[in-house]
Amino acid sequence: MEAQIIKAGILTIGDELLIGQVVDTNSAWMAQRLNEVGIRVGERQSVGDVYHDIWQALDALGAKFQVVLITGGLGPTADDITKPLLCTYFGGTMVVDAGALANVTAIFERLGRPLIERNLKQAEVPDVCRVLQNARGTAPGMWFEKGGTIFVSMPGVPHEMKGMMEKDVLPALHERFGLAPVIHRTLLTAGQGESFLAEAIQHWEAQLPAYIKLAYLPNYGMVRLRLSASGEVEAEVEAQFEQLKQLVAPWLVTDRDETIQMVVGRLLLERGATLATAESCTGGYIAHLITSLPGSSNWYLGSVVSYDNTVKHNLLHVPATILEEHGAVSMPVVETMVQGAQQTIGSTYAVAVSGIMGPHGGTADKPVGTVWIAAAGKGQLVSRKFHFRFDRQRNIELTAAAALNLVRTLVLES
Amino acid sequence: MEAQIIKAGILTIGDELLIGQVVDTNSAWMAQRLNEVGIRVGERQSVGDVYHDIWQALDALGAKFQVVLITGGLGPTADDITKPLLCTYFGGTMVVDAGALANVTAIFERLGRPLIERNLKQAEVPDVCRVLQNARGTAPGMWFEKGGTIFVSMPGVPHEMKGMMEKDVLPALHERFGLAPVIHRTLLTAGQGESFLAEAIQHWEAQLPAYIKLAYLPNYGMVRLRLSASGEVEAEVEAQFEQLKQLVAPWLVTDRDETIQMVVGRLLLERGATLATAESCTGGYIAHLITSLPGSSNWYLGSVVSYDNTVKHNLLHVPATILEEHGAVSMPVVETMVQGAQQTIGSTYAVAVSGIMGPHGGTADKPVGTVWIAAAGKGQLVSRKFHFRFDRQRNIELTAAAALNLVRTLVLES
Repeated sequence: MEAQIIKAGILTIGDELLIGQVVDTNSAWMAQRLNEVGIRVGERQSVGDVYHDIWQALDALGAKFQVVLITGGLGPTADDITKPLLCTYFGGTMVVDAGALANVTAIFERLGRPLIERNLKQAEVPDVCRVLQNARGTAPGMWFEKGGTIFVSMPGVPHEMKGMMEKDVLPALHERFGLAPVIHRTLLTAGQGESFLAEAIQHWEAQLPAYIKLAYLPNYGMVRLRLSASGEVEAEVEAQFEQLKQLVAPWLVTDRDETIQMVVGRLLLERGATLATAESCTGGYIAHLITSLPGSSNWYLGSVVSYDNTVKHNLLHVPATILEEHGAVSMPVVETMVQGAQQTIGSTYAVAVSGIMGPHGGTADKPVGTVWIAAAGKGQLVSRKFHFRFDRQRNIELTAAAALNLVRTLVLES
Repeated sequence: MEAQIIKAGILTIGDELLIGQVVDTNSAWMAQRLNEVGIRVGERQSVGDVYHDIWQALDALGAKFQVVLITGGLGPTADDITKPLLCTYFGGTMVVDAGALANVTAIFERLGRPLIERNLKQAEVPDVCRVLQNARGTAPGMWFEKGGTIFVSMPGVPHEMKGMMEKDVLPALHERFGLAPVIHRTLLTAGQGESFLAEAIQHWEAQLPAYIKLAYLPNYGMVRLRLSASGEVEAEVEAQFEQLKQLVAPWLVTDRDETIQMVVGRLLLERGATLATAESCTGGYIAHLITSLPGSSNWYLGSVVSYDNTVKHNLLHVPATILEEHGAVSMPVVETMVQGAQQTIGSTYAVAVSGIMGPHGGTADKPVGTVWIAAAGKGQLVSRKFHFRFDRQRNIELTAAAALNLVRTLVLES
């Protein structure tokens, strides 16, 4: 049943990846896009700016995979050794590429900066590669072939790499291999942990054909379940997915490949409704999640980040007496906050959060992780208390997800 | 001069890493902490939940490194095969660990959830490992030794892994190898690109001793420069760092290991001053960067996220006539916004941003990436126009960094 699978390795290069100063987001993005054109990633490797290590990684990945995508190490500075190494590895000579030179020159003219020797170096490429012009930066990409493997070297700057992948690399790979894409169907659940869900679907999972893979992807206190398969098995995946949906129906947030903020946006747009937020402990993170979505201005009006109590009072009209009597992390305060946001901002729905994210600020009565969330709609007002037990960053993420989920259920109920 | 270096490999396991549904943040964090105790990371690998691939990665990394840290693959669900594999790899038999069992039981009691068969499995470990109890979750960690290499397997959930690293793994590695830590000195610059800086410091870089490494770490439109060395060379690193500081003085933001938001916070705290923000196009991201810092409530009061123009009018008191005449992305609007935020929220300083982040919303007159930023202080008011040329997410990040840098310079001038 399974179609022939093209497998790829990803190699990211740079000392910064090994000392932890930079999180490698390139690999995840590349893996996702490769999957979509039907190429499965078998392995990812990161090595430093060390000649021997890069050489060895090229050998190792080249021996295993038909495609090796490489990012990093192409910058203009002295710690970048990848380009000359690739030139030697593939048996070429460095030459100036006219297209890359025109690109570098144009970029510096546009910026009104003098072009220096070091930048001109960026236009040099091995004469044994196909040059991929960089529409978003100075370093060109390079497409090599050796021993039946395609090696593509791209800049490590994420938006430059992404531009090159979309414009050149993915279309070329797709054309070369002409494969059926890998099929993914995902759904998102909230309110139950991974173990519980696994128990709830175990009999169904046992009968799942071997060529359909199930994965549990917990994130933000929710669990995404994903079915994947490749080849001409769309109908079978669809049928299995429908069964899975039935089994997890009580906790189902969406059966599409959406985040919780995308679900909330879709529900509001369908109803011609709008949302406002009032954030204390999440400090603008809910607003950031929402406004990272293009088009969110069609349903999201804004937020009052009332980090300090004076802001809760001045902008959200929370009476000082309520703040004094109950404390900022309390049901009366979030309920007043949410109504304040709804009225002042003039939205259909609103959600408010107040809590203690840690590591400091907890008390015996209200330990770190205590959070109150309220949501308001058309004459509706609900509030819930949560207790998260993690570090500051994760508590913020969990609070944001819980707040968005509370709005989602409120919108569905109205 | 260089002390003996212990080198480590990092192996992250999970299909989710290879289809790109999850960004691997564990590796960067582990690498950073290993460096701090004097262990250098030589390579990172990610493989899927595939028996042969995991086995091969253990072989490959074990042959190269004295320490191999492994995360992932320890969950209770059927796609996790790592634990039985490790048991076979290290020649053990699975046994129930009393400590792990007590931990799993206590967690489920605390959550008030029934303990199911699948969860009990989490208490099983190979009898050839030292068990590392998980203070934040159900899956125990495992410490193996084979052929002169230490292998430590930890859960993939970041906060569980971090807890285990801090409490057990790092102290044990530190004690075992008793090494001098790697020395890092970093500084942050703004206003010049990587190439220009490289040119400005090239003569100094040429005389840098081989045992001190320089790295360029561009991020958010700023460039961090880092010197690293290991062994008893602190004085020499310090002297070189002082020279570097002089050379980049015009663009120096900080000579400490701080982010721009940490610098702003420190400057405000030193002056007993406070900050408010008014965010249109960044949609709460500046507030999020600030409030992610523990203790930011000592200097940050809050934000008005005025995504919709009605919020600019209602909460920041931007006159409708100004909005109509000049448009939301204009100097008069950000200057009114920043004063509105400063007055309504009652802060010493304020910063406001309004721009077009893309991909839609640009016009011939104001293309995508056009941003106005204003900062206000004690009788001061400055505004600047920027033009960023990237995708939505990166434009948001660059705008936030530029806004924080504008506040920084304003505070330093007052």
